[in-house]
Amino acid sequence: MLAEIITIGDEILIGQIVDTNSAFISKELNKIGVQVYQITSVQDERTHILKALTNAKENADLVIVTGGLGPTKDDITKQTFCEFFDDSLVENAEVLQNIKDIFSKYIKREPLPSNLQQAMVPSKATILTNKHGTAAGMWFESDNKVFVSLPGVPYEMKALISNDVLPRAIKHFNRPFIYHKTLLTYGKGESEIQEIISNWEDDLPSSIKLAYLPSLGRVRLRLSSKGHDNELLIATVDSQMDELFTLLSDIAVGYEDETTIQEQISEILQSKKATLSLAESCTGGAIAQEITAIAGSSAYFKGGIIPYATTLKSEILGVDSEIIKKHSVVSIEVAEAMAKKCSHLFNTTYALSTTGIAGPTKGDGIDEVGTVCIAIASPQGVVSEKFSFGKPRERVIKKAVNKSFEMLLKEISKN
Amino acid sequence: MLAEIITIGDEILIGQIVDTNSAFISKELNKIGVQVYQITSVQDERTHILKALTNAKENADLVIVTGGLGPTKDDITKQTFCEFFDDSLVENAEVLQNIKDIFSKYIKREPLPSNLQQAMVPSKATILTNKHGTAAGMWFESDNKVFVSLPGVPYEMKALISNDVLPRAIKHFNRPFIYHKTLLTYGKGESEIQEIISNWEDDLPSSIKLAYLPSLGRVRLRLSSKGHDNELLIATVDSQMDELFTLLSDIAVGYEDETTIQEQISEILQSKKATLSLAESCTGGAIAQEITAIAGSSAYFKGGIIPYATTLKSEILGVDSEIIKKHSVVSIEVAEAMAKKCSHLFNTTYALSTTGIAGPTKGDGIDEVGTVCIAIASPQGVVSEKFSFGKPRERVIKKAVNKSFEMLLKEISKN
Repeated sequence: MLAEIITIGDEILIGQIVDTNSAFISKELNKIGVQVYQITSVQDERTHILKALTNAKENADLVIVTGGLGPTKDDITKQTFCEFFDDSLVENAEVLQNIKDIFSKYIKREPLPSNLQQAMVPSKATILTNKHGTAAGMWFESDNKVFVSLPGVPYEMKALISNDVLPRAIKHFNRPFIYHKTLLTYGKGESEIQEIISNWEDDLPSSIKLAYLPSLGRVRLRLSSKGHDNELLIATVDSQMDELFTLLSDIAVGYEDETTIQEQISEILQSKKATLSLAESCTGGAIAQEITAIAGSSAYFKGGIIPYATTLKSEILGVDSEIIKKHSVVSIEVAEAMAKKCSHLFNTTYALSTTGIAGPTKGDGIDEVGTVCIAIASPQGVVSEKFSFGKPRERVIKKAVNKSFEMLLKEISKN
Repeated sequence: MLAEIITIGDEILIGQIVDTNSAFISKELNKIGVQVYQITSVQDERTHILKALTNAKENADLVIVTGGLGPTKDDITKQTFCEFFDDSLVENAEVLQNIKDIFSKYIKREPLPSNLQQAMVPSKATILTNKHGTAAGMWFESDNKVFVSLPGVPYEMKALISNDVLPRAIKHFNRPFIYHKTLLTYGKGESEIQEIISNWEDDLPSSIKLAYLPSLGRVRLRLSSKGHDNELLIATVDSQMDELFTLLSDIAVGYEDETTIQEQISEILQSKKATLSLAESCTGGAIAQEITAIAGSSAYFKGGIIPYATTLKSEILGVDSEIIKKHSVVSIEVAEAMAKKCSHLFNTTYALSTTGIAGPTKGDGIDEVGTVCIAIASPQGVVSEKFSFGKPRERVIKKAVNKSFEMLLKEISKN
């Protein structure tokens, strides 16, 4: 049972947008035991779309196509599906009503002729109602294969996948279970890790696949397996993962499948009824942004300050300017003072601070580009660490953010 | 002259990572007049990679492959290239030296045998030296087609594309020029825009392609054309774009090809020697994060405060708590007070504030989920606006961020 994802749109092929839809669809299909064989991004062009559909029909049982369903002239997916299935467009009363409802409820004006045109759909399609937009989702069955056409707008596509496509796919296909478990490590590179786990890796049953996923200062190790006995599958992978965790216990931070590190922090802080504040200099709001992206973060996140200019570290945060003069603005001492002052100012259990030189220039400090100090104030005192994250700017910021979350998870996990 | 991008890695197909490499490569290829025909993501699996290479060879003149070059056992790209080109791995002295250099300079330990193995490369490949990592880039020529193999690590891949692949491609291929120009609009949907520009669109020369790119509260309109006379190309597209701008003058914000809206704001603030601070409640640091992602932002961005808890809006920012009680925390009045207090606290020319209910729950306010107020304090006074951004949380935050940048650009562009 294999799936293929086809995304239609020149904006992907000229690099104007990043294709995030495919990652979402892949993740959701995996959860219900459907393996994605290939993701293909093609142009808004008739012959190219037809070729992609033909190839996908050979490779996969389920083909999910996104994009090209808008009301404008560059949207040709429906016409192309008609050609592929030898079908024609007919007006669908249900889709027409949905378009009218959406206009009266949300857009609050009369639909234009081009909007009403969106009610014209291939006659052989089963309609998947798009509650958030005017382009209908469509489900086609042909020669034991299923083709699904969805709008490219992420919000609309996601609702259709979750509410319509997945339940239908579960009913329609006989699927094996797929199980992944991912260990997050930091502090060693992938070849060093391989050296440590080499014997274990050689003895790994062939039914379990190991992948190394290195990124900015961390390596994730993913075990995957599939089969029809779900309990056996989980037991086998989990027991191998236990061995792996033991081998890497000094660099293992936690697991990362069900919950991200941000979600783990959220759960722990809530269960402890603890609060958090941030004083972000070099990370410039990036940590706060990831924390506040999580629903319910207002239960533990009281707020933050971004004292980007050096003088603000004293003026607003209250760090003694003598400490800055003496140790430089990027120092363990300043980071610790920032964290302590931040926890007082915001009156929180924990406060995390960052100060560093993201580059490309050295700014008003004396430190090398890439130097970052991170500190966490807690009821037990202050912990801090100094890092050299190299270049370039975006990588320094991202590494500082990753490291901050890892340090924070470690700190709040202590009793 | 067509290109195809192949990304290798199960992590893309299970949705663990979003493929950002392809967008970067597409954008860079477009700039040198190379059109990307297709992007294909395939598994770390021999037969699948071979099939993708065979298909790409049919479709494209230049095939760029990323991923699968690491030191671990799941990395099989090099072996598969050998099979595809009937080649074998040989040790390359230059690559070996680079690996040793990288270990002594950055990793500061002896390379392991698996690291040294990375010096084994296909004998027919021209080596592209990877200054930032141990996996070499490779350039193959076969039957008038070019295949390039690059590491999947974005930082390493980007440097190899910019420093090696693009200069070589420019020399090797006879390419037409490709020119895009994108107009950013906000305030109307794509079908309304189509209605306004319908006559103009019908008269558009067939050599120019128009695309509608709708996303969260804004529609971008992209004109594209290609040809061998670059001056004529630019003149033709620009003159059509002028007409389009005139037709949409009340909703057109600016152009978006060379510079993003954040970069435009950066340039204007610097040229005015003006400064900016932020008081972000519902956007939780997301605006600051986008501003500080730009190199040189410390020249105009002094800092920000994230008064996430309602009480902090008074306690730290100094907003009169009576205003909050009287008008509710999500109100034009509170947003304006936040912006004014912020500009005083940080002593900046401009201060932007956000307050809103991102959801999913209503929090401690009385306002509907999705309600957001944005205000900007400037030397001329305060402007503000109240929005209903609907649901869900991530969309509300993203729309508030987009709208903030649009309002800010408008405000700082005034004389």
